[in-house]
Amino acid sequence: MRGQVHADELAALVGEVAVRLGERWGSGGSLLDAMCAHALVPAGKLFRPILLLESARAVGGDVEVVLPAALGAECGHVASLVHDDIIDGDDLRRGRPSVQHQYGVDNAIVAGDALIFDLFAALAECRLTGASPERIVLALEVVSRCGIDLCRGQSLEAELCRHMDFDVDAYLTMVRLKTAAFFRAACECGALLAGGAEEMVGALGMYAENLGVAFQIHDDLLAYTWTSETTGKPGTSDIRNGRLTLPVLLAHAAADESDRLAIKEVLVGEGDPEPRREILAAILDRTGAVTAAAKVAQRYVRSALGALDALPPTISRERLRGFAEAAIDRDR
Amino acid sequence: MRGQVHADELAALVGEVAVRLGERWGSGGSLLDAMCAHALVPAGKLFRPILLLESARAVGGDVEVVLPAALGAECGHVASLVHDDIIDGDDLRRGRPSVQHQYGVDNAIVAGDALIFDLFAALAECRLTGASPERIVLALEVVSRCGIDLCRGQSLEAELCRHMDFDVDAYLTMVRLKTAAFFRAACECGALLAGGAEEMVGALGMYAENLGVAFQIHDDLLAYTWTSETTGKPGTSDIRNGRLTLPVLLAHAAADESDRLAIKEVLVGEGDPEPRREILAAILDRTGAVTAAAKVAQRYVRSALGALDALPPTISRERLRGFAEAAIDRDR
Repeated sequence: MRGQVHADELAALVGEVAVRLGERWGSGGSLLDAMCAHALVPAGKLFRPILLLESARAVGGDVEVVLPAALGAECGHVASLVHDDIIDGDDLRRGRPSVQHQYGVDNAIVAGDALIFDLFAALAECRLTGASPERIVLALEVVSRCGIDLCRGQSLEAELCRHMDFDVDAYLTMVRLKTAAFFRAACECGALLAGGAEEMVGALGMYAENLGVAFQIHDDLLAYTWTSETTGKPGTSDIRNGRLTLPVLLAHAAADESDRLAIKEVLVGEGDPEPRREILAAILDRTGAVTAAAKVAQRYVRSALGALDALPPTISRERLRGFAEAAIDRDR
Repeated sequence: MRGQVHADELAALVGEVAVRLGERWGSGGSLLDAMCAHALVPAGKLFRPILLLESARAVGGDVEVVLPAALGAECGHVASLVHDDIIDGDDLRRGRPSVQHQYGVDNAIVAGDALIFDLFAALAECRLTGASPERIVLALEVVSRCGIDLCRGQSLEAELCRHMDFDVDAYLTMVRLKTAAFFRAACECGALLAGGAEEMVGALGMYAENLGVAFQIHDDLLAYTWTSETTGKPGTSDIRNGRLTLPVLLAHAAADESDRLAIKEVLVGEGDPEPRREILAAILDRTGAVTAAAKVAQRYVRSALGALDALPPTISRERLRGFAEAAIDRDR
């Protein structure tokens, strides 16, 4: 019963985040407002804001205090999507035209920049909801470093692809930077701004980092196990961009010479990506790489769950536990 | 004599800023480190860090406290240059290949993003040099809003150019957002972090905003009065990008029908921009637009100087005065 009330409260809060995100850029009327609103609304799953809010609750804090930071987390996430879609040449995002496709690359660069700045503007707004300046500055440190990590991850990914570097450790480092750092920052910020003790902030950071790696591996798998109709984004983006994801790396490690050659040909190939995706999916299947990658993701989920043991038993901790279990069981 | 000591001290401090900027990204060895170091080093004029440092002093503060924020100001400025060079297709920056030219557009997007995040990381570092958390949060608010203003200015500029909107008021709004907001933020942050009183922060903000507009107008004029050898960046960028700068707007207002047509043809034209620049420079000359734009810049300089009267008489105030007088007398 208490769990249900909590879930309803959280759903209401997430609904409020979605509404406020719409208001944030929805009323200006300029090109920039239109682009940012297009990118933010309708909202996605709001997973990062949810992580931030649950982390605030998991340390016994007040979610109202951290609400602006939850908005900021989504702005920051969407900023990275806007710039990613330029880099990957993706025209579809959440089932709609990407910002770069709708407004052009130049405008999309500026829109992404504005959303990065808005992440920090939102963080500053926590001053008005009752967060202590000391805690806001600690969160500022976490968020800005996370942003740099994210860029390091993207840049490292570009290097790995360019060098065709089939190295699982390098991939895991890259994923930690590119995806898991943001999850970590969301949880740490929620806990920090809500006044959580250092060891709880640390435990939530550990949880989120492991969750983030599992999440990304599962995302990588979707390109080979689901269609774009399910995911709302093109399933061939990884192929077009010659991306070395974990299933591909594990397939390469397990493959014979002829399949290794085929993998390389798919990744450097040009033209219609769909037949190439099918070739790769078949190799992934016969080398058992999909199952092997899923197992690695499960290992990270177990680590995430383990980290939660350091937190007091609350409904929020159980919900965070549920997110970890669901992370490798999503279809989008 | 005291003025000389102050100038020497400041020169030493600015030298330290340059060295620390080099160290900030100079030792990592990754592609991202290489790109950020390429963009930051050798340092430019460091005008925004200088404004920030002098503002801290002008309110009687300790420059050591605000030093990280001064580094951040340059990171933020360089971030905008890196992304601008993508948008404008400029291959030359500070006499060297631009990041997008050297490393490609995709990598340059990521490098610019990293430098935006580093601006905020640097701001957080002021916690270690003795700035109060309250003041850091106020500075965070100023900087994040300034960043959004900057994006609004860039986006507005794109709109004005696309619509061939020869509107001086719209131009001035755009310049206030695109250029002056950053000057304002640098001065306000220096004053805020150094513990300055509200009215001093306001006076420095007013000074900087007017200085920024004058600075941008002068910059716009350079495209028609100087060559790329002097400025270290291509003098034809404004032409190639069909940019509606103040001298062009004033020439359009003063021109006859045939010259108005010629101006439009130059701005929408394709191919070699240099002959088009020469046509436009001749129209600017015969309509007196260069002189008229310079006069507008002078008016903003006078407003900037007037704002400084609210500050106590210090060497820093005199130096800020000198910057305003020199702003419209630069050749790069």
